[in-house]
Amino acid sequence: METPYIVIIATGSEITAGRSVDTNSGWIANQLFELGWKVKKFIALPDDPELILSELQNLKDLAKTKPVLAIMTGGLGPTEDDYTLETVLKLNGKKSYSVEKAKIRLTRVYESRGKQYSDILPTVLRQTHVPEDCKILDNNVGIAVGFVEPLGVDSYLVCMPGVPSEMKDMFTRRLTPELKRLYPRENLVQKTKWLWNIGESLYQKDFVEKNRESLFSDVEWGVTANRGYIKCIFQSNYSEKLERIVNELEKQYPKIISDDVFAYVHEELISKKLTIAVGESCTGGLLGKKLTDSPGSSTYFVGGFLTYSNEMKESLLGVSHNILSQFGAVSLETASSMANGIFEKTKADYCISITGIAGPDGGTESKPVGTVWIGLKTPDGQVQTHSYIFPGNREGIRENASNTALFLLYQSLKQRNI
Amino acid sequence: METPYIVIIATGSEITAGRSVDTNSGWIANQLFELGWKVKKFIALPDDPELILSELQNLKDLAKTKPVLAIMTGGLGPTEDDYTLETVLKLNGKKSYSVEKAKIRLTRVYESRGKQYSDILPTVLRQTHVPEDCKILDNNVGIAVGFVEPLGVDSYLVCMPGVPSEMKDMFTRRLTPELKRLYPRENLVQKTKWLWNIGESLYQKDFVEKNRESLFSDVEWGVTANRGYIKCIFQSNYSEKLERIVNELEKQYPKIISDDVFAYVHEELISKKLTIAVGESCTGGLLGKKLTDSPGSSTYFVGGFLTYSNEMKESLLGVSHNILSQFGAVSLETASSMANGIFEKTKADYCISITGIAGPDGGTESKPVGTVWIGLKTPDGQVQTHSYIFPGNREGIRENASNTALFLLYQSLKQRNI
Repeated sequence: METPYIVIIATGSEITAGRSVDTNSGWIANQLFELGWKVKKFIALPDDPELILSELQNLKDLAKTKPVLAIMTGGLGPTEDDYTLETVLKLNGKKSYSVEKAKIRLTRVYESRGKQYSDILPTVLRQTHVPEDCKILDNNVGIAVGFVEPLGVDSYLVCMPGVPSEMKDMFTRRLTPELKRLYPRENLVQKTKWLWNIGESLYQKDFVEKNRESLFSDVEWGVTANRGYIKCIFQSNYSEKLERIVNELEKQYPKIISDDVFAYVHEELISKKLTIAVGESCTGGLLGKKLTDSPGSSTYFVGGFLTYSNEMKESLLGVSHNILSQFGAVSLETASSMANGIFEKTKADYCISITGIAGPDGGTESKPVGTVWIGLKTPDGQVQTHSYIFPGNREGIRENASNTALFLLYQSLKQRNI
Repeated sequence: METPYIVIIATGSEITAGRSVDTNSGWIANQLFELGWKVKKFIALPDDPELILSELQNLKDLAKTKPVLAIMTGGLGPTEDDYTLETVLKLNGKKSYSVEKAKIRLTRVYESRGKQYSDILPTVLRQTHVPEDCKILDNNVGIAVGFVEPLGVDSYLVCMPGVPSEMKDMFTRRLTPELKRLYPRENLVQKTKWLWNIGESLYQKDFVEKNRESLFSDVEWGVTANRGYIKCIFQSNYSEKLERIVNELEKQYPKIISDDVFAYVHEELISKKLTIAVGESCTGGLLGKKLTDSPGSSTYFVGGFLTYSNEMKESLLGVSHNILSQFGAVSLETASSMANGIFEKTKADYCISITGIAGPDGGTESKPVGTVWIGLKTPDGQVQTHSYIFPGNREGIRENASNTALFLLYQSLKQRNI
């Protein structure tokens, strides 16, 4: 079957007014990419039934010439300005009905709040409605039911709630199997590797271009730039081709390659029963925040010190006045002394210190804005120190520094397993 | 003149593949809203010249029926897959020329890297090109020149670089005056207030609906939901109408209303020469990170303690074993004791402690997930404590807690000035 022409539509005046950013469409595109499909267009529309209907009518016309898959989020809620169902009914000249299962779910929610079925407002009840003869997509997280409507030959319009948690659950559990059924195709394999402190263009020039002929036949590749690292994504129907690419990548970049460091650090610290503590200057808490993003981090994250001022570096972490005045707060000596100080106070297995100049002020000729020293005390008692000059603005430098600190921890944890 | 039909277009395969989120369109829509215009549609397209051309052709056709303003970002860079200029030339049957000023700028950049004009690749030089007879938009941040092309009667296509810093500078300095010239209209006034720990729908019901007739004639309003607060935005050509609304809002919600607390806290701490230190449990560094987001925060942010474990609460902040075992780590007593401990170690004017259950595990019947205690020691030596049950997932609860802590600080700083 021909690959469908895919359009993702987000509805919501809050999006087109710039009050909130549509992250649903990108997430869906990513999921579709993993299913092997590329998206032709994103559209975002305000909550305006005429604009939405005219856009859907255009897609229905297009579906007369080729298979179209339109995936729309938003407009299924209980408020006045939710127009999706009404618009789809008008588009296809259909009536709607209330899905029994959803009605029961909604009633239970009301009952749990001490109310009863008759208290439910019509606009709220509308969330349980779908067009006649559609494919229903159950909502396990919220109330509004999703659905798949025909749009033409091999063409479909998918409507899902705009609430990300509801949409994501619905997409993964309900829509993905349905799409695989509607558009059967061979299974794609995907591999992702991270490369640290290297630019996207340099990677393209030095790896992709150089190996284009030998490695990249039947392989789709992509790259995304992040703070401190790029993600290199490869996709193919032939898993052995991906293996070859990843081996080549590891051979070319042995010192800067990693898997997802956030996931690895989290799992490794838990499974090896290791603990960690931090001491942060320029990142002001960002490293601690990242280390505690995942549930269960209390098993390894002991605590930390935000030693923003020199006084605090002295009083909390015992960095000597001498070191600070002789080498400065941003120096190998201070980073190292901070790491030792963290250990003295916490006895954690790993102690990470960060001290740097996040800017925009405070840079000098010898230590420009972006200069960062990272100290890492490992369980063997050694203290590593690493220096960087990170690019970007204040936010970028702080993100770079905290991510790179996690990469250093990743490398040290990996080393143990060799 | 008729208000134009506004479409914002973002080009870039990284967007439609879901590898990066388009934040430009939302930012532009927000700026346009402040100019008094609403956007009809966002479109995002991959780097595919045919798709881009067909979309622009559609807009050119539409411009035969009404004034159209299309603002496009991306595709002006130096790589193979930058197609914007080429597509616009094809659309309007024009040739391009190299803007002298941009060429000089580019040459200087090359010279500063020890290279010369002849080293510049044609694709790089292309960034200095614009269509004949267009309105040029200078780029003060990067190389690629932006431009405004006619699209029909009172209709224009604006092309700007996709790099946010370049686009924003170009929009503000170059495009805004041009738009005001092309589409003259009276000046709008805008006011924004924040309301804390109240839902969007409750605000709409209790304030907007109730005052719709008396307050909201000739006033556009909007609301955006954030972690812990909603932003209430009002717009009108009559500033006295906005005054009345804001007064009414302050009267109705005296205890939960604020201005931008991040900006206020930053400015107030600097101007009053006050210092602050933090002690964080469940937020793991997020409050410290927020307090150091802005340049110049080193003048007030002394430092802090990430006391994730009970042991650290005892050893770093001197919370007694007794308090922890009798009342628990998430309690008034612990929050208060942490705030005092921060003061002991830092002598900061304001000391904020946060301790709570961010989940998903760790909740109990009496202290469900989302329970958070915040302690605030003020310069008069008093310690306030506040408890909350924040909604949302782990990330939401942590964002809520740290933002609300800043709101408490805001209130205390405001109090001093009464």
